[in-house]
Amino acid sequence: MADSPNCDLKSLSPLQLFERVTEQGDKVRALKAGKAPKDEIDAAVRMLLSLKLSYKTTTGQDYQAGLPPKDLVLINNGTTKEEDEDLVDPWNVQTSNAKGVDYDKLIVRFGSSKIDTDLINRIERATGQKPHHFLRRGIFFSHRDMDQVLDAYENKKPFYLYTGRGPSSQAMHVGHLIPFLFTKWLQEVFDVPLVIQLTDDEKYLWKDMTIEKAYEYARENAKDIIACGFDVNKTFIFSDLDYLGTSAGFYRNIVKVQKHVTFNQVKGIFGFTDSDCIGKISFPAIQAAPSFSSSFPQIFNGKENIQCLIPCAIDQDPYFRMTRDVAPRIGQPKPALLHSVFFPALQGAQTKMSASDPNSSIFLTDTPKQIKTKINKHAFSGGRDTIEEHRKYGGNCDVDVSFMYLTFFLEDDDRLEQLKQAYTSGELLTGELKKVLIETMQPLVAAHQERRKQVTDEIVKQFMTPRKLAFEF
Amino acid sequence: MADSPNCDLKSLSPLQLFERVTEQGDKVRALKAGKAPKDEIDAAVRMLLSLKLSYKTTTGQDYQAGLPPKDLVLINNGTTKEEDEDLVDPWNVQTSNAKGVDYDKLIVRFGSSKIDTDLINRIERATGQKPHHFLRRGIFFSHRDMDQVLDAYENKKPFYLYTGRGPSSQAMHVGHLIPFLFTKWLQEVFDVPLVIQLTDDEKYLWKDMTIEKAYEYARENAKDIIACGFDVNKTFIFSDLDYLGTSAGFYRNIVKVQKHVTFNQVKGIFGFTDSDCIGKISFPAIQAAPSFSSSFPQIFNGKENIQCLIPCAIDQDPYFRMTRDVAPRIGQPKPALLHSVFFPALQGAQTKMSASDPNSSIFLTDTPKQIKTKINKHAFSGGRDTIEEHRKYGGNCDVDVSFMYLTFFLEDDDRLEQLKQAYTSGELLTGELKKVLIETMQPLVAAHQERRKQVTDEIVKQFMTPRKLAFEF
Repeated sequence: MADSPNCDLKSLSPLQLFERVTEQGDKVRALKAGKAPKDEIDAAVRMLLSLKLSYKTTTGQDYQAGLPPKDLVLINNGTTKEEDEDLVDPWNVQTSNAKGVDYDKLIVRFGSSKIDTDLINRIERATGQKPHHFLRRGIFFSHRDMDQVLDAYENKKPFYLYTGRGPSSQAMHVGHLIPFLFTKWLQEVFDVPLVIQLTDDEKYLWKDMTIEKAYEYARENAKDIIACGFDVNKTFIFSDLDYLGTSAGFYRNIVKVQKHVTFNQVKGIFGFTDSDCIGKISFPAIQAAPSFSSSFPQIFNGKENIQCLIPCAIDQDPYFRMTRDVAPRIGQPKPALLHSVFFPALQGAQTKMSASDPNSSIFLTDTPKQIKTKINKHAFSGGRDTIEEHRKYGGNCDVDVSFMYLTFFLEDDDRLEQLKQAYTSGELLTGELKKVLIETMQPLVAAHQERRKQVTDEIVKQFMTPRKLAFEF
Repeated sequence: MADSPNCDLKSLSPLQLFERVTEQGDKVRALKAGKAPKDEIDAAVRMLLSLKLSYKTTTGQDYQAGLPPKDLVLINNGTTKEEDEDLVDPWNVQTSNAKGVDYDKLIVRFGSSKIDTDLINRIERATGQKPHHFLRRGIFFSHRDMDQVLDAYENKKPFYLYTGRGPSSQAMHVGHLIPFLFTKWLQEVFDVPLVIQLTDDEKYLWKDMTIEKAYEYARENAKDIIACGFDVNKTFIFSDLDYLGTSAGFYRNIVKVQKHVTFNQVKGIFGFTDSDCIGKISFPAIQAAPSFSSSFPQIFNGKENIQCLIPCAIDQDPYFRMTRDVAPRIGQPKPALLHSVFFPALQGAQTKMSASDPNSSIFLTDTPKQIKTKINKHAFSGGRDTIEEHRKYGGNCDVDVSFMYLTFFLEDDDRLEQLKQAYTSGELLTGELKKVLIETMQPLVAAHQERRKQVTDEIVKQFMTPRKLAFEF
């Protein structure tokens, strides 16, 4: 950012201006929190006010944190986002609330269904397995048509799992594992085929990156995914750049979706503009197509109507709302969905982790020492300012990132409950809670690294070769 | 069309209204030409005036034949079409001039170069062959960078040919053969590889047609193309629906083009709107990609920088203007082009032949009798109204469709010149000229049908299998 931000404000789009105001607001808060000199804070506040004025002049709207200019927020099936709502789309997750996104509101806005106790009990009955702690703890909290998947499953009708990843860099962080860990559990308890899409083409289109680099990241990320422990006989991992050139069935489904979605629609769903490249505009069809079993003739023996279930973070839902809208018009079943919450950044639950900020995340390549330092230094604490106050009033688990991480990675329910009570009561200090998290994450990441070392290029090739899996269709 | 066209005029787009006015104008002319009852003509004229009024109300512009509403005509690299200019884009060819499109003006508007005597002589010197009559007679009249292709060829640098067809129906007409006949000659005299794209995906996206039907048409059209006499060892024919799922190199080039072209650009070049499906919007990249040799690793041994030469009708130029704009930005050479004029409809040179109107064309499946009837009944004549006048003033070869067809298909220059002089002087009557055309077309079509019968599914498969050709790279 230039020293004088006003010089080029007129050339900024409403969204760029919005981002500048948000950045400047963050800066002001950081200066205040860091007890910076008064004149420095005053200068930053003046700049913030000036940016807010430019924003109002340009958009005709008052700046509101977490709420970009109205025309740009249309992911909610055509209705616009309300004032204090969170921003959630495939490229942005933003909330002003330290507890994170309000997921109950999101369910209403997106028109999905809550995963309630009844559904969790039904999954337990259908599979005969204790539900995964991601289900028990509301980490997968929302769904579309999961009851229909269970109806079919109980009637011995097959389904398959589809999830994916955009390989934006070589290094994945622990948050990236959430959908894969859960998908692995689903695959095991239901015993179904799984396809995993690596959208290297998407990353090439969106980022300043060569095709070769995007493809390399896809293969590197595949190693981390495989290291989660997937069964090669039941799992097909594919890079778009590779698989599109291998399967006529996949391209046919892509072009079918592309025929049935207009630019107006993707503009409404994803906020694309006339200045976006035509690759971005048509990409949603490429993420949609694996929802249809005919994209994988080698797995499904050419069968066209096998139900798909997609576990994913809820920011990916716009792609699949679009897919579900198109499906009946091209004679395909709508994919069902299971939505997870976002994995919070170390700095707090207002946004999700980002692979581009090394301090926002614990990476799968971090050493035990790096993990310790990052948690101690960056994990946002719900504790009190002094030990005395903490002992007296207790910590706040709702905003404490260390505690949040433990809900993701500490499988022992009793232990987690004990920690919660001890922290809330003030008995457990922030440093002690962080120590528990460090001791949980260090072996978990080390074990992942150990498994990843075993993943040879030959094993990657096996997973990424289109082939029949260990199922009959 | 409804009986009362006014009921739904308000819901029509400017372009739809334009088309309605044009249709109604055609109808009025047909009624007048057919000496229909006066009250019928009057009713049609009233409707025409009413449509023109609606057009003016909606667009704020007066209706002008061949000139669609201003905002929609932007194929001319961003500048708009002048009043009396011809409409030429991949989906429309329209002129008010009976001689056909003004090609000299088109060269200026498109920014291409005229194929002049110097260039034709240079092709003769380079190949040691008499130039094809399509060159000698100005049927291929415009080019881009053909001199560079010849520079390279004279320095023993390789190039390849790329042409194509949109398989919109099973039946091809004689006009569809023009680019293939010329491409075959080019391939023979230069001895270079040739790739032929069948855009079945395009036809699926644009037409009310299933994917299966589009693919079937592609394979049927391939038979007609093969029947032109291409050498299987030097020619690769591909359906997009097939080949996209066979070649990672092809998809990579598509996505590279898609990254470097915005919606604004395709809107300007092709007139797409926000209501168009995302498949149409991204399709131009699929027609662009075969211009790059890396789309065919099996032919070019993975080499990336082999010059491409594209013979095509000039209405396809917008695709390749876009391609030439993108090429340097993705590190590829710009394709060179050779442009042909349009093959006129039997009814006159104002528009090109259309496969959807059986009487506008001589089809490759027509019997000798059908050919005779169509030419006698529909071929627009440049002759006079009575024999006496014809003998006295002579016929007009510039607008006579039979004579135009002979310039395409009668190879004997001396004979053609004799016919021209005899017709212009009035010595040769229209019926006699038509007889010459019938006698030229009947054996030509019959011979094509005979060759087509020899094209088995096995031969089609050979042409359409990605493979090494008889060249070293």
